[in-house]
Parts: sequence; C-alpha cells; structure tokens
Amino acid sequence: KSGAVVSDVGSVKRAVIDAVGPHLPDHTIFIPAHPLAGTEQSGPTSGFAELFDNRWCLLTPVGAPAEATATLRAFWEALGANVDEMDPDHHDLVLAVTSHTPHLIAYTMVGVADDLGRVTDSEVVNFSAAGFRDFTRIAASDPTMWRDVFLNNKEATLEILGRFTEELFALQRAIRQGDGDHLHDYFTRTRAIRRGIIEAGQDTDVPNFGRRPGKL
Amino acid sequence: KSGAVVSDVGSVKRAVIDAVGPHLPDHTIFIPAHPLAGTEQSGPTSGFAELFDNRWCLLTPVGAPAEATATLRAFWEALGANVDEMDPDHHDLVLAVTSHTPHLIAYTMVGVADDLGRVTDSEVVNFSAAGFRDFTRIAASDPTMWRDVFLNNKEATLEILGRFTEELFALQRAIRQGDGDHLHDYFTRTRAIRRGIIEAGQDTDVPNFGRRPGKL
Repeated sequence: KSGAVVSDVGSVKRAVIDAVGPHLPDHTIFIPAHPLAGTEQSGPTSGFAELFDNRWCLLTPVGAPAEATATLRAFWEALGANVDEMDPDHHDLVLAVTSHTPHLIAYTMVGVADDLGRVTDSEVVNFSAAGFRDFTRIAASDPTMWRDVFLNNKEATLEILGRFTEELFALQRAIRQGDGDHLHDYFTRTRAIRRGIIEAGQDTDVPNFGRRPGKL
Repeated sequence: KSGAVVSDVGSVKRAVIDAVGPHLPDHTIFIPAHPLAGTEQSGPTSGFAELFDNRWCLLTPVGAPAEATATLRAFWEALGANVDEMDPDHHDLVLAVTSHTPHLIAYTMVGVADDLGRVTDSEVVNFSAAGFRDFTRIAASDPTMWRDVFLNNKEATLEILGRFTEELFALQRAIRQGDGDHLHDYFTRTRAIRRGIIEAGQDTDVPNFGRRPGKL
C-alpha cells in the first residue's frame, strides 16, 4: 500500500486510531504523531521558531509501510525534533504518567485552593510563591482540549490515578503516624529523576526555572 | 515587656511556638516569621540579591508588643518584602494549601513515575516536557526540611489532603462516567486563579515560565 501520508498531533492515540481508521480513503496512510512540545497557551499565535528543538515527537505507525513512516520522521526531524516510534497503547500509558495525570492533579489542587480562597480571599494568590503557583500554570491549559484528553484516554488515566492515590495514602499514613524515615526516604528518591531530566536536556538547570522576583 | 527580638524563618509556626516558647529567656521577644521566597535549592549559596523583592513575609506575633513587631516588619521591608501578620494556626492552614500539600502531591507523582520508570526506563525522563517536569522541580527540594514540615504541620496538611482526595475522586468519577461537562466546568474555573497570581506580581506571564527548548 502506498499513497498520501496523513497525520495528526494529538495527545491520545488509541481512540484516534479507532475513530479515524474506518473513514480513511484507500489511497491514504494514517500515521498518528504526538510532538511533546508547547506551553499552557494554545492556537497558532502561541508558536515560536524553536518550539520543537530537542523535543520528542512520538509516532505510532500501526501497520504503515516503513517508507511512509520514514517520510514523516524526516518531516519532524527537519523541524528540530527527536523522533521515537511506539505502540499506540504504550503511548497512551506513557502520556498518562508524564502528562495526563499530572494535569488532572494540578487542576484538582488549584480547584481545592480556589474553594478555600473564597474564605481567605487573596491569600492563596498572594502567597502562591511557596510552591502552588507552578500548579496554576499547568491548570491554565485549554479546558476543551483537556476534557477530551481525559474522555479519550480513560483507561490509562484511571490506572495511573489508582497508583497515585495508593502512594499518596501511604505518605498520608506516614504523616499521621509520624514516620519520618518513610517520608525522608521517599523524598530522597524523587530527587534523582530531576537530575535525569536536566541531563537529558528536557528542562533548565537554573533554580526556580530561572524566575527571579525582580524580573516578573 | 521589652527586649531583644528573636525570630525564625520556618514554614511551620504553631509547632515552633509551642517548642520554643517555654525555653525563651525573660529578656527576649519571640516573633516567628516566614518569608515565602526561595527556590528548590537550599543553603547560603542559593541566595541572590532580589530573593525577597515583592515576595511576602508572614509574621505571627502572638502577644508581642506592637513596637517589637514594627521593628521586625521594618527589617523585612528593608529586604524588599511585603509583610503581613496573622495567627499561627491560620498561617499553618494557608501554607498547607499554598505549599505543603502541593509539595506532597508533587513528591507522590514523581515517585509513581519513578516506579513505572523502572520498567520503561528513560521514557519518563525523555518525555517529561508534556507537564511532568514541573513536578520534578518541586520534588527536588530538601528531603530533611520537607520531612520536618509534614511532621510539624500534620493536622493542617491532613485536612487539606482530605479535601484534595475528595475533589480528585469526583473528577475521577467524571472521567469514568464520561461526564465531559463536569470536567470542562472544573478546568475553566481554575484558569482564573492563574491570572490573579500574575496580576499580583507573584509569577511571570510569559508562557512556560519563559523556558524555550533552545535555551535549556
């Protein structure tokens, strides 16, 4: 089979493949793609020249001819991206960990603070620099897109959420029981993953993402 | 009562007041303080000149003479900070919302990803730009300090964690039942709080905190 290569740039793969597949004309080859790039802002005016530089773009070429996949890979590499290929279900699980569940958690935390903010008014806003404000950036993302992400990656998101609450309850129990060793061990382990991300060129190594009060 | 003003710069107030109070000599006045400033890095070499500019410093002057409180307020204002005063228990609740619970959640999410990372190896690190990496900055904070925060602000943290899981389960249920309206409404509400933080000068308004791939 050969023909025009059709692609997309969505955050969920399995649901898109199932929905689009039956409607594809014979002369097209559908290869879903997902560039892991962008900011909390949406739309054409939110783009910039280095948007894809050293970011990963994931292809899920189920049954596509190798030549067609190579064409799409060359396209993304020309834009500056690194390209990887994987099974759609694996993609959806990895994204549930690295993106979908973190977004849902950020939305939840901001919602809780907003509820309490009705009592204490501007305190949540003024005192956000103690950690909370980072959550608000993620929770400022497009509501329609994120509604659709969760509705379309239901199974993987629910699986990772289950793992998350399991771990959270273990830490909550450690706090209640005063188990300082459990907390310290956990908090020490999570530091290493930050170093890995910086070494992989996926985040800046300057403290506080380079934000300094005088520059806000 | 008058005398030397003694202060601290910790994240928890009630436990510190209860612990320090009985040991204070007669000629000292203890006024706890908490500057909401700093990065994920600790120690004297992590400071910089604008560290306290336009950041809030919270004082909890229980029973201290007004003159002594004014002295400490002037000290923090001279460093560039805004100063507010509040009851220690209220401080601990506000910080549980704006700092302690967000940190525990970030630690938890990074721990979950790390567990799954043992299977899929570097995927969590390479594909972190989709949202997860912001959590890793917070979860890279000092493990000893954060263990002590949770052990000393147990009640308020457990209360806010209870609120958090209640909200999270409601969103999880909406995902399971395909209730798109509930998700969309929730995600729309949380956007406004980000705008408030930017207008209050407590975070940058540039997308992605100003990070761009080419500059990492």
